[in-house]
Amino acid sequence: MSTTDLLADLETIGRTPGGGYTRLAWDPATMALREWFAGQAAALGLEVTEDGNGNQIAWWGTGPDALLVGSHLDSVPEGGPLDGPLGVASALAAVAGLKASGWTPSRPLGVVNFTDEEGGRFGIACLGSRLATGAIDPAIALALRDDSGTTLAEVMQAQGRDPRAAGPSAWLADVSSYVELHVEQGRWLAPHDAPVGVASAIWPHGRYRFDFCGEGNHAGATAMADRHDPMLAYAATVLAARDLATATDQRATLGRVRVEPGSTNSIPSRVTAWLDARAFDHVALTTMVAGIRARAEAAAASDGTTVGFTAESESDAVTFDPALRHRLAALLDAPVLATGAGHDAGILAARVPTAMLFVRNPTGVSHAPQESAEPEDIEAGTVALSKVIEELA
Amino acid sequence: MSTTDLLADLETIGRTPGGGYTRLAWDPATMALREWFAGQAAALGLEVTEDGNGNQIAWWGTGPDALLVGSHLDSVPEGGPLDGPLGVASALAAVAGLKASGWTPSRPLGVVNFTDEEGGRFGIACLGSRLATGAIDPAIALALRDDSGTTLAEVMQAQGRDPRAAGPSAWLADVSSYVELHVEQGRWLAPHDAPVGVASAIWPHGRYRFDFCGEGNHAGATAMADRHDPMLAYAATVLAARDLATATDQRATLGRVRVEPGSTNSIPSRVTAWLDARAFDHVALTTMVAGIRARAEAAAASDGTTVGFTAESESDAVTFDPALRHRLAALLDAPVLATGAGHDAGILAARVPTAMLFVRNPTGVSHAPQESAEPEDIEAGTVALSKVIEELA
Repeated sequence: MSTTDLLADLETIGRTPGGGYTRLAWDPATMALREWFAGQAAALGLEVTEDGNGNQIAWWGTGPDALLVGSHLDSVPEGGPLDGPLGVASALAAVAGLKASGWTPSRPLGVVNFTDEEGGRFGIACLGSRLATGAIDPAIALALRDDSGTTLAEVMQAQGRDPRAAGPSAWLADVSSYVELHVEQGRWLAPHDAPVGVASAIWPHGRYRFDFCGEGNHAGATAMADRHDPMLAYAATVLAARDLATATDQRATLGRVRVEPGSTNSIPSRVTAWLDARAFDHVALTTMVAGIRARAEAAAASDGTTVGFTAESESDAVTFDPALRHRLAALLDAPVLATGAGHDAGILAARVPTAMLFVRNPTGVSHAPQESAEPEDIEAGTVALSKVIEELA
Repeated sequence: MSTTDLLADLETIGRTPGGGYTRLAWDPATMALREWFAGQAAALGLEVTEDGNGNQIAWWGTGPDALLVGSHLDSVPEGGPLDGPLGVASALAAVAGLKASGWTPSRPLGVVNFTDEEGGRFGIACLGSRLATGAIDPAIALALRDDSGTTLAEVMQAQGRDPRAAGPSAWLADVSSYVELHVEQGRWLAPHDAPVGVASAIWPHGRYRFDFCGEGNHAGATAMADRHDPMLAYAATVLAARDLATATDQRATLGRVRVEPGSTNSIPSRVTAWLDARAFDHVALTTMVAGIRARAEAAAASDGTTVGFTAESESDAVTFDPALRHRLAALLDAPVLATGAGHDAGILAARVPTAMLFVRNPTGVSHAPQESAEPEDIEAGTVALSKVIEELA
């Protein structure tokens, strides 16, 4: 049972006409993926459990001092095939290989499928691991609404789950380390000629909402001088984010925008936009975001419009456990790199020694249909994860 | 029966939480408005007809050489209460007043409610009058789709209409002039201290689609230098449109935009945006649009993205019949002004002598909930329309 074969099982689940995948938490696609995970784990003789947050763990042995491996199966809208599934499939393949070789772990081993890592449905990433570790109040999480206005509590209930069970998970007390294998995001391993790398840290990350408010009006009948068009300050903010992030070698993106009323012949009354910002440390992040905000406010003031600003979420930098990272880098003779992407491993790292392995991404593209890895590199990643399990469990 | 009272009947139909109106062709709100129109007309003893395009006409007398007055009852999404309904309600009120005074027309008089003037559902404005006059091929119109993917033909069928009847209307042969009263769009009458004005012309108008295509990717893991983000060229285009329109005293608006995949943590793969452009003549319009397009292409080239350009519709300038315009300006002692907004009157003008009256808009706001006119000015407009009917019919 190779990782590539396991991933081939998933090729049609949640596939979109554009060749990507839309697998949002608790939707029909992720429900099918959960079934698949439970079936594969059962076939390996693992005992599948589900906590009150929907996180599935397939156990080989029970009790304290467990090693957890795995990732998630959900995606962003129109995402790629590997972000998440590669980590789950390689963990199942590694367990299958180790079982076939006659090896048995000296401590419990769990393969995890975390619920809603991408935040593609309710807007907050890593919801499953945040709830399990107590990083988010379950009352706040359960009240989050998807685009159709349905709350997480209602969605869970519709899938036969009891929302009152959401919150800190008992299994966490038994886990003493977590290792997540993931497709590389960005392009660092290819120029360094390495199929597998070990993560050093996750950059701090914030999501911020800008509410640009102006005066809706007729697009044909309103002279330019009489307008208060909030789209103009939005456009200035997009370019300011690009300029400030480029100048400081950080990252700033405006990839989601909502326009009211959104008709061709109307000057908008309101433009709502979300900024995704990442930087190598917290001071750099807040300095960049303050600069973008100042440019937004200056543009709005010159147009007679206004701009509201809300920090919807901010995640501190995560430094992965140095001892574990050095041990795995030595074991695998692998290079060490930082990442700008958030992961469940970043949430778990606050509670237990945690490490991440990355599998080379030849183009660096992720969160898009073109996300890919060579079959040899997927195999190399699975071998690396097997070695890590043998070493740690 | 005053115009203000008639408009009060409509206050709750299609009202949105934001205090505006969303009344799109053939939706429940416009169906209710059609019922209301038929009922009011019948109460006045007019004979209500409907052509194969859904245009309703309430006739006082039949036969050739008819005078047509009226406007439309649909709105843009989140539009105001007056754009359209003011012209229909004032025509009904004028007829009621003339009937009560014992006056009778010497030629047939029709009050019209044109279908889908705003194009808010199928994307092409003045669809009812375009179909009636043969300005659009019914096969093309019937194949237009709304946001839910339903064609106009299917929508008409669902409302019990026969789509095969759509196309050039027989009634047009009987009409020898058309006068549309409308709330002013923009703010010209207020500084000229006049409650009512007469239109000289409608500026040429185009709608253009820009397809900005780049490479979707992870917002956190992709270095700025490795990106091909189509949002950047979109933002540059918004600002270019503002700059070029302002410099030449024309009008350019980007009020509708669609982002794929549209998630906060994804660099977009595609941004689709619509430009609404108007200018005092056709050369000025095409020069401005070519300039905006060149700036869009230059921005895309520098980002390693591409931009497609499609002219979705272009309307030539309309000059209203000079003899009729001078006659009405003299009759009403009213000033004459041009408008940047399209109207059914602009479509009819290609076939019959046509005029427009504008009622002062104190703020100039239209296509938005704040659209308004003072009750005295609405009354002045109704008196003016009555005089015009007496003069012409």
